[in-house]
Amino acid sequence: MTLRHSSPTELYAAASDGDRRALARLLSLVERGGAPSRQVAALAYRSAREAATVGITGAPGSGKSTLVDRLVAAVRAEGGDVGVLAVDPSSPFSGGAILGDRVRMQEHALDEGVFIRSMASRGHLGGLALAVPEALRVLAAAGLPLVLVETVGVGQVEVEVASATDTTVVVVNPRWGDAIQANKAGLLEVADVFVVNKADNPGAAETRRDLEQMLDLSVDAGWRPPVVQTVATSDDGIDVLWGEIRRHQAHLAADGTLERRRRDRLAREFRAVLSARLARDAEHALGEGGLGALVDDVVEHRLDPYAAADEVISAITRRSPDHA
Amino acid sequence: MTLRHSSPTELYAAASDGDRRALARLLSLVERGGAPSRQVAALAYRSAREAATVGITGAPGSGKSTLVDRLVAAVRAEGGDVGVLAVDPSSPFSGGAILGDRVRMQEHALDEGVFIRSMASRGHLGGLALAVPEALRVLAAAGLPLVLVETVGVGQVEVEVASATDTTVVVVNPRWGDAIQANKAGLLEVADVFVVNKADNPGAAETRRDLEQMLDLSVDAGWRPPVVQTVATSDDGIDVLWGEIRRHQAHLAADGTLERRRRDRLAREFRAVLSARLARDAEHALGEGGLGALVDDVVEHRLDPYAAADEVISAITRRSPDHA
Repeated sequence: MTLRHSSPTELYAAASDGDRRALARLLSLVERGGAPSRQVAALAYRSAREAATVGITGAPGSGKSTLVDRLVAAVRAEGGDVGVLAVDPSSPFSGGAILGDRVRMQEHALDEGVFIRSMASRGHLGGLALAVPEALRVLAAAGLPLVLVETVGVGQVEVEVASATDTTVVVVNPRWGDAIQANKAGLLEVADVFVVNKADNPGAAETRRDLEQMLDLSVDAGWRPPVVQTVATSDDGIDVLWGEIRRHQAHLAADGTLERRRRDRLAREFRAVLSARLARDAEHALGEGGLGALVDDVVEHRLDPYAAADEVISAITRRSPDHA
Repeated sequence: MTLRHSSPTELYAAASDGDRRALARLLSLVERGGAPSRQVAALAYRSAREAATVGITGAPGSGKSTLVDRLVAAVRAEGGDVGVLAVDPSSPFSGGAILGDRVRMQEHALDEGVFIRSMASRGHLGGLALAVPEALRVLAAAGLPLVLVETVGVGQVEVEVASATDTTVVVVNPRWGDAIQANKAGLLEVADVFVVNKADNPGAAETRRDLEQMLDLSVDAGWRPPVVQTVATSDDGIDVLWGEIRRHQAHLAADGTLERRRRDRLAREFRAVLSARLARDAEHALGEGGLGALVDDVVEHRLDPYAAADEVISAITRRSPDHA
């Protein structure tokens, strides 16, 4: 099959049958957005296949990539297939580009049960926050039962992406103030499991205690995020971490939370898509910088918010929806 | 002047000249929404008058109303005029209805320098979250230099309303776990000043310590919310509280934060108005329950989010904007 000239429908059929190169091409289409991406979205949305999703986030240098590698090995030891989506909102590169020199590519490159892919925002409407859920559905439709989503930084988009999964793992290090920084970055609220990685360094017990203390002050009933200590480079604690991730997924499934969360995420995604579409339509209708100029008019008190909203809406409705 | 038959423009002119009954009528128009409210919004938006705004929130029974009364007395002792907006998202009543039997009405009823008004959502687009900023501009345009916004509960709308002010005061009581509940309700993030009210009860020191500990773990640079102990019923600590509120306002003004926050709030308000307008237009265009049915289609995987957004947008654009 010549992938380069295949239609989204042909690529989708091939990917569903296990063709990993076709899957990689589909994810490129998702990244780029536009009409082909829409076709892929519609196909994958109708698939009955579902994947368990695990987001892994934390400050740069905390050892997330090594942790993901070790988790992949743990999953493979049990015989399951696994996908890895490495997301970097700050990078315009994707595919093999940033992963070529990474250890894990060498380690898992010949393993047919592992599909690794990095992802950047190359034009998808709404950026990575909307491209990632779509990519996750494509990975599920291709038959991967589990996908790990690794984010590179701890900005708002990264946290949003990592928490749009069933289980969110937050990685900190045994450094003074690391737990507090994680809290300030809004990670305490999204964490289902905490990892103190590089726990062979001094201060691991203190960092763990800081986290437990913050959890005492903020956790609601239902699920209290466990705090796991790991040394990913020497595989210490990975089995415990994988066990806690599975325990969380069992917890979600047991009381209907998983179903409810997934439905809530879809409803939120629909609203986000609608907002992004309308914002784009408004930019089209008002011309380059037109929406920004209206915001300026509002904050400078030249136009009240209601009059400004009128202008946007009449511009959109005057314009025929040929750009849908 | 016969207020009942006055136009919004006439009422606005009278309120700007200090007519408090005209001001009360204007606020009723804002509550009710629709075309008259739009006229009021446009007029008040062009006013150069600004008011300092202070939000006061906390659990029911924490003594917020008494605190507000005492703050009003402290402001009046200094000779300044002050407005009070009591906001209850759960109540369909407003105006004199829920305030008739309140102590402060009797105490400040004859004081021309105090304007007290309760507010409910009676039809304003976007509910109280959008009606309150509009009401605050009307109060500022009427010449009130300071407005206290008291919310009744601690739901999401209440927190949103109270934090859409320059200074947000969060009230807790010396009860075991009260500080932790405040944190869980998202109040730690929005607080500029904490009050431990009813501090003559046992546990005040512990509650204060809990708050300080949580602040240690979460506060970013710039401003650390002070924790003030008060016994509002006997006027204890009110001068300290008022001093901290003024200190916060001076802090905001000094480094340009006030200007930046107000501009950010206006930009957010514009986006919220636009979203509310579009949601309303979508409901109009799709018919009763039409938007909800589309959300159902999405979460049931009958329609992908992009196709659902298409349906909304083509329904809006097919419809002429006669309902603007």
